[in-house]
Amino acid sequence: MYMEVPFYDLDPMNVVWHGNYVKYLEASRCDMLSKIGYTYTDMMNEGIAYPLATMDLKFIKSARFSQKLKIVTTLIEYEPALIIRYEIFDAKSDELIFKAKSMQICIDAKTGESIYSAPVKFVEQLEKYE
Amino acid sequence: MYMEVPFYDLDPMNVVWHGNYVKYLEASRCDMLSKIGYTYTDMMNEGIAYPLATMDLKFIKSARFSQKLKIVTTLIEYEPALIIRYEIFDAKSDELIFKAKSMQICIDAKTGESIYSAPVKFVEQLEKYE
Amino acid sequence: MYMEVPFYDLDPMNVVWHGNYVKYLEASRCDMLSKIGYTYTDMMNEGIAYPLATMDLKFIKSARFSQKLKIVTTLIEYEPALIIRYEIFDAKSDELIFKAKSMQICIDAKTGESIYSAPVKFVEQLEKYE
Amino acid sequence: MYMEVPFYDLDPMNVVWHGNYVKYLEASRCDMLSKIGYTYTDMMNEGIAYPLATMDLKFIKSARFSQKLKIVTTLIEYEPALIIRYEIFDAKSDELIFKAKSMQICIDAKTGESIYSAPVKFVEQLEKYE
Repeated sequence: MYMEVPFYDLDPMNVVWHGNYVKYLEASRCDMLSKIGYTYTDMMNEGIAYPLATMDLKFIKSARFSQKLKIVTTLIEYEPALIIRYEIFDAKSDELIFKAKSMQICIDAKTGESIYSAPVKFVEQLEKYE
Repeated sequence: MYMEVPFYDLDPMNVVWHGNYVKYLEASRCDMLSKIGYTYTDMMNEGIAYPLATMDLKFIKSARFSQKLKIVTTLIEYEPALIIRYEIFDAKSDELIFKAKSMQICIDAKTGESIYSAPVKFVEQLEKYE
Repeated sequence: MYMEVPFYDLDPMNVVWHGNYVKYLEASRCDMLSKIGYTYTDMMNEGIAYPLATMDLKFIKSARFSQKLKIVTTLIEYEPALIIRYEIFDAKSDELIFKAKSMQICIDAKTGESIYSAPVKFVEQLEKYE
Repeated sequence: MYMEVPFYDLDPMNVVWHGNYVKYLEASRCDMLSKIGYTYTDMMNEGIAYPLATMDLKFIKSARFSQKLKIVTTLIEYEPALIIRYEIFDAKSDELIFKAKSMQICIDAKTGESIYSAPVKFVEQLEKYE
C-alpha cells in the first residue's frame, strides 16, 4: 500500500508522531485483507472479530510531511492466530523507516471466546490468494 | 472541566492542532452530561443517540504543551435540538483561547429518525440540575 | 480529492466520529494547495503560517467503513483572509454528506502578527491556477 | 496516573481502539517525567530529544467508555537508553488490562546523533526521585 504523510500526523519535531504508525498498520492490514477477499465487514457479518493481542513496533527513521511511504504487509501465520509483519519504506529511496509485527486472535464477537481455527471462508480466500 | 494539553495533541508549530479541540469539546460535553445525570450510556440504554448536526469553532489563541485549560460548557437549549456553547480559557490567566457552539439532534438509534422532544429522563434530570 | 473511510476513524455507532472530518478537510486543503503550487512547506520556507481562525461544520449524513468519499474544496477568497468551502460527497451516489467552511489568517510565523495580504508567490500561483 | 476512557477513543466494538493506548502511555510517561522533575520542555531547552526506538504492546482486556484506568509507569533503565514499563489496570478491580514496554534513545535534537549517556540534570533529578 502507498500513502502520503498527512500534516495532522506530525508532532512538534516535524515528524510523524510515533503512535500514528499504528493507524498506518491498520490501513495496510485492511488493504491486504481486502485483496485476500476477507474484510472487516466479512468478519462482522460472520459474527467474529480479530482483536489485537500483541504488537511490536520498531522505529528506524523519521517520516516527514508529504513523504510518500510504501507499506509492505506480509501474512506470516493464520492459525492458531493471525500474525502479520509490516515494513514501511520511503517510496522513493526504498529506505526502511519502520517495522512491526502483530498478533490477532479470532474471537466470537458475542461471547468473546477465542477461536483457534481461522474461519472457513477466510481460509478459502487465503488459498486462492497465495 | 479542567484538563492539561497532552504532547500528542501538538502540531509542528508546537501548539494544539486545531482539530483536537473537537475532542476537548466532547470530553467537556460528556462531563456536563454526567453532572446532569444523563450520560451517553443512558442514551444508548434508551435506544437514542444525539449525533452532531452543526458545529462552529472559533480559534482565538494557541494552546501549548502542558498548559492547564478550563472548559466552560453551557446548555443553551434542549428542545427541539440540543444546543451547547463552549469556552476554553487558560486556567491561570482566564484568557479566552477558544469558543464553539454545537447543535445535536436526538434520533432513534435503530431507525435514525429525528425526535424533536428531549427524552423524559433527560428533562427530569435537567430540571433537577438547573 | 478521493479517499476511503479507514476503520480507525469509526465510533461505536459504526460511523465516522464527527471530529475526524476536520482531518479530511485538512487533507483536502493540502491537496488543493499542492495543485495550486503553494504548499505548507512553501509557507514554512517563507516564514509564514495560516492558522485556522474559524471553522463551521455541517454534518448531513453518516459516513461508514470503506465508503469512498469525494471531497470538493473551493477557494472562496484569499485576501484579507483565506476562505475555503468544502463539500464531501459519497463518491458513488454523489449524495452530499458533509459541508464546511474555514477561514485562515496569514501570520508571520515568528512574531505571530497578522498579514492581511497574501504572499506574492501564493498570488502568482493562484493566478496560474484559476 | 489515573484517567477515564473518553468516548472519542472507542471503536465500533465499543471498546478503546488499540492504537489509542499509545497515547495513554505517553500521557503516563510525561506524568512520570514531571514527577521526576525532567519534562519534555526541559529536554527541548537542553537541545535533546528522546524519540521512541521500540515499543511492545500486550492487549489483555478491553477498556470501555468512562472506565477509570490506573496506569503504573516504571523506569527500568536510563542508560544507555530509557526503558520504561507500563501496566494499565481497571482502577476499581485492579484487573490488568494492558502491558507495554518502550525504549527511547537520547539524541541531539539538531544533529540527530545518538547520545548514550543520560543528560546530567536528568540523572540528578532521578537520584532525588528514587
